[in-house]
Amino acid sequence: MPCNDVRIRSTGIALPGEPVDNARLARAFGLDQIWEQWIDAFVGTRSRYLATDLSTGERFSSLADLAATAAGRALAAAEVGPGDVDLIVMATATPDMLMPATVNVVADTLGINDVPTFQIQSGCTGALQALEVASRFLATGSRTVLALGGDTCAKHLDTRADLAGVPPAQLVNLLLFGDAAAAVVLGTSEQPGLADVRRVTTRLTGLGREAGQTLEWYGLADRDGRRPPASENYKAIEEAVPRMAGEILTEMLAELGWSSADFDYLLPPQLSGRMTDRIVEQLDVPAAQPVSCVTETGNTGNALPFLQLDRALAIMQPGDRALGIAVESSKWIKGGFAFERV
Amino acid sequence: MPCNDVRIRSTGIALPGEPVDNARLARAFGLDQIWEQWIDAFVGTRSRYLATDLSTGERFSSLADLAATAAGRALAAAEVGPGDVDLIVMATATPDMLMPATVNVVADTLGINDVPTFQIQSGCTGALQALEVASRFLATGSRTVLALGGDTCAKHLDTRADLAGVPPAQLVNLLLFGDAAAAVVLGTSEQPGLADVRRVTTRLTGLGREAGQTLEWYGLADRDGRRPPASENYKAIEEAVPRMAGEILTEMLAELGWSSADFDYLLPPQLSGRMTDRIVEQLDVPAAQPVSCVTETGNTGNALPFLQLDRALAIMQPGDRALGIAVESSKWIKGGFAFERV
Repeated sequence: MPCNDVRIRSTGIALPGEPVDNARLARAFGLDQIWEQWIDAFVGTRSRYLATDLSTGERFSSLADLAATAAGRALAAAEVGPGDVDLIVMATATPDMLMPATVNVVADTLGINDVPTFQIQSGCTGALQALEVASRFLATGSRTVLALGGDTCAKHLDTRADLAGVPPAQLVNLLLFGDAAAAVVLGTSEQPGLADVRRVTTRLTGLGREAGQTLEWYGLADRDGRRPPASENYKAIEEAVPRMAGEILTEMLAELGWSSADFDYLLPPQLSGRMTDRIVEQLDVPAAQPVSCVTETGNTGNALPFLQLDRALAIMQPGDRALGIAVESSKWIKGGFAFERV
Repeated sequence: MPCNDVRIRSTGIALPGEPVDNARLARAFGLDQIWEQWIDAFVGTRSRYLATDLSTGERFSSLADLAATAAGRALAAAEVGPGDVDLIVMATATPDMLMPATVNVVADTLGINDVPTFQIQSGCTGALQALEVASRFLATGSRTVLALGGDTCAKHLDTRADLAGVPPAQLVNLLLFGDAAAAVVLGTSEQPGLADVRRVTTRLTGLGREAGQTLEWYGLADRDGRRPPASENYKAIEEAVPRMAGEILTEMLAELGWSSADFDYLLPPQLSGRMTDRIVEQLDVPAAQPVSCVTETGNTGNALPFLQLDRALAIMQPGDRALGIAVESSKWIKGGFAFERV
């Protein structure tokens, strides 16, 4: 939908602990230097932040902890108090528990009460889906909405596992993903802020297609051990994501009435450093500067579009335009959002 | 929000297998006749449908199966094809997996593609939250929305467990809950249909309050066994739910400009047969006929408000009004919706 009424008032992010580089990751799982070099060369993700201590297996930050930290920063930046928020929409693939929903634990931590809250279960397009739901509420009466995206994927890994026998479809989760949460305070265009959302679109395009990614509850779903806790069909993802990114870019530009030279920043899908480079090349919008964080944070799922947004807003000048693209590869959702610095 | 533009075009429901009565449940878990009589007397839930075979532990229906069946029935009743649906919003506490989201598996089964989909993670108010999100989309351009609510709680139970040592806070889950899915096709008021939604409201009111209910992933979350898979603080629920039901009734009537004699049917919260009777008594709206299904279906969580809706619409006459109330007791959300038969 067109979103002339949606203003981005502020952003806030939270990354757990210290960055874990590839050498540290390889060491923790008893993998060799060849593996480490292979990550550098073929994946291109240099580090990630994990909410689980690789040495002890201890989870030192919950998703609710990270989301509340990110949200607290965003609210402070917008000078918005908890009583001013009239809706929270949070997206995640990896809630702390099924019930209570993590969004409601976050609300409690922030002191927000007596408002509708929604937690959207999704993969890498979830932040855009949260933005889309928020936009509809802002268009129909809401004034100040807190949108959140976050994932703590590390809790799905068994840090005590012997990885020698783990197939690559699971092993890839170890190195691609990172934990993070990010928040955006949204308002209407009369309010002070950083940018206006011009459009947000998400669409399932999974008809008849196998899942590219699966994630079982808690990572230990099958009591008889036949199903892996998390797996990726990396080949399918490698084929589909660049194509779907191209499709949504074309559609977004048509809907916005923009040409490929009409925007200044591109927020590309963030599967891995290398994959992002390849997608950017294929999208062929040389006038737009890519804004990425995947090489430092890994793929942080539902947090990532808002991490990119946070980074983009810090360098954009008034009047600059940006277009963000995300692809959800579990059942193939494509999404885009466009915004303009005010 | 006021919802003058939201028309309920049809409903559809799905219940797995045959009803499981209290005697069957007691037998399956090696519990005695006293226990069975205790359920009859103090809980008042006579039967429930379970998607898990109590003898074998086999899960014969997934949540996606049930939701697709319910949705197929609703779409057929409204004579709406998969290509006409422009949005799906599904609510559940018990998704089949974390990824892909169950809503997207349902879409695939139904042949629905190229539309936004949202899966809301919530407890007993989820169906109302789905209705609320759907209403905002219908107010801003959507034409035909499929709203779904469903839960398959039985998969969280270990059917092989010896229940002698299970504390009542967990045991209560065995007898209170049932599995089901229900669907509603929503459109705008120019379309043919059964009723108009007059208002839908949901609000978190969990500030500083302990969770009344917890549900871990897969029911076997804690590998070290310190945390139960699912538990209820039944005392807290018993105290809070009737009170919250009264609050939301008062608020809804004020917002609607209705008196307690201005509606014909009441869809009360459905924790158990006995609890529902008590809530209805306390709400004190003698002019409204209660519409319940909990004694036959158990508490089916996110399906339940739509099961009641389905039942109410079958008996309502044109011009009749109804008011539905639901309370989510994991982190305390209260919700209401009002509709009028056309």
